[in-house]
This record gives sequence, C-alpha cells and structure tokens, in this order.
Amino acid sequence: MEHTVTAFDQELRDLAGHVAEMGGIAERLVADSVAALARLDQFQAQRVVDADRRLDELQRRIEEEAVLLIARRQPMASDLREIVAALRISIDLERVGDLAKNIAKRVAAINGAGLHKSLWVGVEHLSDIVLEQMKAVLDAFTQRDDAAARAVRLRDTEIDALYTSIFRELLTYMMEDPRNISQCAHLLFCAKNLERIGDHATNIAETVHYALTGAPYGEERPKADLSAIETVTPA
Amino acid sequence: MEHTVTAFDQELRDLAGHVAEMGGIAERLVADSVAALARLDQFQAQRVVDADRRLDELQRRIEEEAVLLIARRQPMASDLREIVAALRISIDLERVGDLAKNIAKRVAAINGAGLHKSLWVGVEHLSDIVLEQMKAVLDAFTQRDDAAARAVRLRDTEIDALYTSIFRELLTYMMEDPRNISQCAHLLFCAKNLERIGDHATNIAETVHYALTGAPYGEERPKADLSAIETVTPA
Repeated sequence: MEHTVTAFDQELRDLAGHVAEMGGIAERLVADSVAALARLDQFQAQRVVDADRRLDELQRRIEEEAVLLIARRQPMASDLREIVAALRISIDLERVGDLAKNIAKRVAAINGAGLHKSLWVGVEHLSDIVLEQMKAVLDAFTQRDDAAARAVRLRDTEIDALYTSIFRELLTYMMEDPRNISQCAHLLFCAKNLERIGDHATNIAETVHYALTGAPYGEERPKADLSAIETVTPA
Repeated sequence: MEHTVTAFDQELRDLAGHVAEMGGIAERLVADSVAALARLDQFQAQRVVDADRRLDELQRRIEEEAVLLIARRQPMASDLREIVAALRISIDLERVGDLAKNIAKRVAAINGAGLHKSLWVGVEHLSDIVLEQMKAVLDAFTQRDDAAARAVRLRDTEIDALYTSIFRELLTYMMEDPRNISQCAHLLFCAKNLERIGDHATNIAETVHYALTGAPYGEERPKADLSAIETVTPA
C-alpha cells in the first residue's frame, strides 16, 4: 500500500513536470515571437511557427496521462483537483502557443517604416508585462503559491489598459497616413494576441488557485479592456 | 451487472445530452451576435453578453461529470474516448461563446454609415457559412456521423478564403476614408472572431472523428487563411 501511494505521488509529480515543461516552451515561443516582431526577423518567426507543433503533442500527452491517472487511481479531492488543473493548464498553454504562432506569422506582413517609435515602445512594454505574467504564473504553479497566483490575476487589468491605449494609438496612425493601415492592422492583431496571452495567464492563475484551495470559479475577474467599445475619430 | 452497464450507458447519454445542450446555446449566441451586428441592435448584443455566462457554467458541469465518470467507471477504449470527446467539445463550445460575446460587445462601437453594402454582404455570408458549420458539426456529434464531420473539416478552407477577402476589403475601406477606420477595425475583429468560430467547428469535427474511430490527431488540416501575410497598398 505504501508503495502504491508513492508510485501515485510520483505519477502526479511527472504530470506536473510535463505541464511545467509545456509552460517553459510556451513562454519561450511568446518571447521569440515578440523578438521576431521587434527585429522583423522572418527566420526566427518561422522557427516559432515550427516549434508550436511540439506544444500540441505535449498537450495530447498530458490529456492522456491525466485521463489514465483518473481512471486507474480514482483519486479523491485534492489529488483529483491537481490532475484536472494539469489538464486545464495544458489547454491554456496550447492556446498560448497558437497565439505566439499567429504573431510570428504576421512578421512578414509588417515593416517598421512610417511607424513612430512610441508605438513599438508600447507593444514592447505590453509584451514585457505579458511575459512577466507568464513567468510568474508558471512559478506559482510549480511552487504551489496561491498568493503569487492571486497577484497575477490582479495584474491583468494593467495589460488590458495598456492594450486599449495601443489600440487607440494604432488607429491614430492609420488615420494619419493610409500607407500605415496594412501593417497597423497586423500590429493590431499582434497586440490583441498578447492581450489574450495575458488572459490565459490569468486563467492559469485561477486554475492554480482552484487546485490549491478547491475554490470554485465564478467570481467575476476585474476587467479593464475597454478596447471593444473604443472609437477614435480622425483629427 | 446488467443494471450497472445500463446505468453507465444512461450516464454517457446524459453527458452527450449536456454537450448537445451547450452546443444549442453556443449556436444561438453566434446567430444572435451576428443579428445584433447586422441591425446594430445594442439590446440584443447585451443579451448575448449576459447569456454567455450560462455556457461557462455548463462547461464546468460537463468537466465535473466527465471526470467523475472516468473515476467511477474506469471506462475502456471507445467509452473513454466518448467521455474525453465530450470534455474537449465543451471546451471548444465555451470559446465559441466567448467569441460571440466579443462580437456583441463591439456592436456599440460600429455604425453602418460610410460602409459599402458589399462589405456587409461579405460579413453576412461569412456568418452564414460559420453557422452552417456549427449546425452541421453539432448534428454530426449527436448522429455520430463521421462522414458529416469530415465534410465540416473540409469546408473550413471556404471560411478562411472568405475571411481573407473581407480582411482585404476592410483595409481598402480604411484607406478610402479615415472616418471608416475605427468601425472597420472593430469589424476586422468581428470577422476574425467568426473565422475562429469556424476553427472551433473544425476542432469539434476532429473530436467527433476521434470519438468514433480512435484516430489520432496530427494530420495537418487544410489551411487557406492567408490573411496573416496579406498586405494592401493604398491606391
């Protein structure tokens, strides 16, 4: 019996290890896609597109492990929550990879000419915060740190507010010069993708909180992305 | 023993029924969000935003049912695939609801003035196909019809091609008149959301195929969304 429990603990640790591995890859893809965008480096962008496939494979593997663990061990309460959490987090990480891939795909359609430096500063600042959130929430997961997860959840409003200001700025550039429109449209989607990666970090934070405490979801999270109702009028 | 098997069958049917219920709600939210957009009806848009919460609750409930079924029944092979499929589909449907909600939120920021009728025709055509895909894939799920699921999967290229042409058209309108830029940016996101709802229909089609045949994922699906590399130059 002692042996069985220990083997199960090891299986849980392996599952968490695979989620952490996936998290490391997802984080790197986001960082690389933003670096490719900042330098307009198409080779690096292509590497992001290729590497995303690995995340999809890992997600399927984690799903399989989680399902087999539930079926074989019939875990109760906190162990079950931990397995369900691993499954949920792997789904969020797979989406993060998709979003990074989509940023990378747009690098080819963007050239930096005509755009003011302040715009790039804004996008870079957004990506810095998003990457900090990704790192913080993955640490919270491996350290089982509920307070750290809560901090991630609260910081999402900062991302939303910054995204809304970038949205306005991009629209202003489009209005100033029609030659900016095409690349600004792609940058708009890049910024939106970063904002959504931030949402996935928040989802993961909520999952960590659920795994550690058993608290149900359902609290409304703070929301400051007002871009959906933003309009900008030409000067 | 007979009794146990029958009870399990009933539980599987209940789970599938809850997924079908979720599918019906998701489909209606998409239809309503597009109707709200077409008529610029903010009351209907608000109802979509409110109703999306129900999908989130149903998703959690399906997750809970699926996990308990796996733990209690330790199902093998095709039964296990069916439960995992229900879980995956519920996750896709929850995202479909989020995307419909996002379309609805943008209704307030869009006014129809200045936009050519052909653009609305394009967006409506896109939403028609997306809704047909949603309906077809939910029917394929309830009828366990692998051929129908395959047809959904193949038709996604049509959505991608149409989205790419709407993307170009929207950029052209932005270039023609800066007063169009703000609303066209929101329409751009609405069209993108519809295209992504189409992707979720394809995901569900792949999940139905997996549930019925046990085939692994991993085949590359056909891809014709070239919008990420599209650029449009002012006339």
